[in-house]
Amino acid sequence: MTAGNFTGVLVPALTPFRSDLSPDRQRFAAHCKWLLKQGADGLAIFGTTSEANSMAADERMELLDFVIESGVPAAKLMPGTGACAITDSIRLTKHATDRGCGGVLMLPPFYYKGVSDAGLYANFSEVIQRVGSPKLKVYLYHIPPQAVTPISLALIGMLRKDYPTTVVGLKDSSGDWNNTSAVLKEFPDFDVFPGSELFLLQGLRAGGQGCITATGNVNPAGIRKVYENWKTAEADALQARIDAVRKTIQAFPMVPSLKRLIAHFHDDAEWVHVRPPMVKLGDDKWQKLLAELNAVGFAVAPK
Amino acid sequence: MTAGNFTGVLVPALTPFRSDLSPDRQRFAAHCKWLLKQGADGLAIFGTTSEANSMAADERMELLDFVIESGVPAAKLMPGTGACAITDSIRLTKHATDRGCGGVLMLPPFYYKGVSDAGLYANFSEVIQRVGSPKLKVYLYHIPPQAVTPISLALIGMLRKDYPTTVVGLKDSSGDWNNTSAVLKEFPDFDVFPGSELFLLQGLRAGGQGCITATGNVNPAGIRKVYENWKTAEADALQARIDAVRKTIQAFPMVPSLKRLIAHFHDDAEWVHVRPPMVKLGDDKWQKLLAELNAVGFAVAPK
Repeated sequence: MTAGNFTGVLVPALTPFRSDLSPDRQRFAAHCKWLLKQGADGLAIFGTTSEANSMAADERMELLDFVIESGVPAAKLMPGTGACAITDSIRLTKHATDRGCGGVLMLPPFYYKGVSDAGLYANFSEVIQRVGSPKLKVYLYHIPPQAVTPISLALIGMLRKDYPTTVVGLKDSSGDWNNTSAVLKEFPDFDVFPGSELFLLQGLRAGGQGCITATGNVNPAGIRKVYENWKTAEADALQARIDAVRKTIQAFPMVPSLKRLIAHFHDDAEWVHVRPPMVKLGDDKWQKLLAELNAVGFAVAPK
Repeated sequence: MTAGNFTGVLVPALTPFRSDLSPDRQRFAAHCKWLLKQGADGLAIFGTTSEANSMAADERMELLDFVIESGVPAAKLMPGTGACAITDSIRLTKHATDRGCGGVLMLPPFYYKGVSDAGLYANFSEVIQRVGSPKLKVYLYHIPPQAVTPISLALIGMLRKDYPTTVVGLKDSSGDWNNTSAVLKEFPDFDVFPGSELFLLQGLRAGGQGCITATGNVNPAGIRKVYENWKTAEADALQARIDAVRKTIQAFPMVPSLKRLIAHFHDDAEWVHVRPPMVKLGDDKWQKLLAELNAVGFAVAPK
């Protein structure tokens, strides 16, 4: 039973840029289709891994339109639509909902620090009211390492009380199992997705829905296998295998590493570009990453 | 001698919103004019105090156009143009430069944390290159309490080396005199503005250009007096007076407090509105603020 429209392994799809830093919509649509073919249950496009905050609102909406026109089912998409500016959040959320997206992943307005839960509630509530659609399904995005501003248990409670059929889930990228566990216990009818596959099995056993994970861009099939087999005797061994891959990659700069891996797997050097303030992965780190991935037995899924 | 076009007391003008949260351009232009009449040497519109990050890029550009059309000299304006998305930063910076603004105040792309100076350099460099105007004057905005991502001395050095006539100054809102002092020492031909009048006199004595300060919205004349008299025997006593006002106000939520003060001074209740995640100052805090300001002898400058 899910409160919203998603369960399983969701991938915050990488956004390819050309060498002039413009978004590369063809490669983006192709990557989205490849991820779904590999077993991704949904695509949390325009997340942190997607460099979404490095793109203007118009760029994000144009990419979303294109990927849907290209044949990616809107129902499989959970675009990030939470911005610092409430007017941007409203516009992005309304656009995604109008296009039929299965849900949206909403960051809090993350510029100001030390703001109150009342202020954060007002932000989300105002967006929900102004979008004004029963089709809207909001997944809150708790990612203190980047946003700093958290989604507290109290805030979830306030939003669940007033918008029980709209605010349906949370991506928990705190990396703190105690927080994930507390949310699962306090809100049993709420769809919780840890922000890393390191917590996939643990999360599923505690009532979670799956995970939304950056490394799903390069290891979707491996991660999906844990989800498919989580009630079997194999589960812990399968989890250990994806843990080894994840821990190897996350010791390197995440987005530049994933882009270089995709460039390598698809034999397409154009994939390496990132927008500042990120920088491309240098050759030394790349060789080290490849060696360490080989050492943990990471095999690329065939195209 | 200044490297850029500004010196003295600059005010990050508050942005008035209507009760429906839309920007109130008439009140904004009137407030900008009032600040200049009170002695502000420049207006750092669209700063943190202006809730700039709560506004979409288009809203900011429309307000800038309106305030200039209303008769505020563009040369007196230093709009904030640094955004998370490099495409927004380029668009905002180009627009402000085309309109003849005396300079722009640029935040680093503040979503990602722990990024390298090389990545931040690439961000600012790319914006400067794409705006491509000798008229562009960039003031870097160092505000770790909100942006977290800092503007380091090394980064200033890299930018000064490659763009000596474009990257001309810094607003230092660290609240850390050791940092301000280090920048002043390492870059003597660089225009440094502490982000609070608490450091005005100390900054001027060490070679700073003045300050850019939130409380300039309500105490522009008092702060200007320190700037005018900083070489006189009165200077320390004048500084002590503005310190008392600043310390009183900054113990309360800054932007909601300033807006309620402006509403009070201008007898205009519409001024109290803030965009989420900020919340209006409640009556209890307001009464406390008024009492404490009276206790330190703060008298409102006449309109």
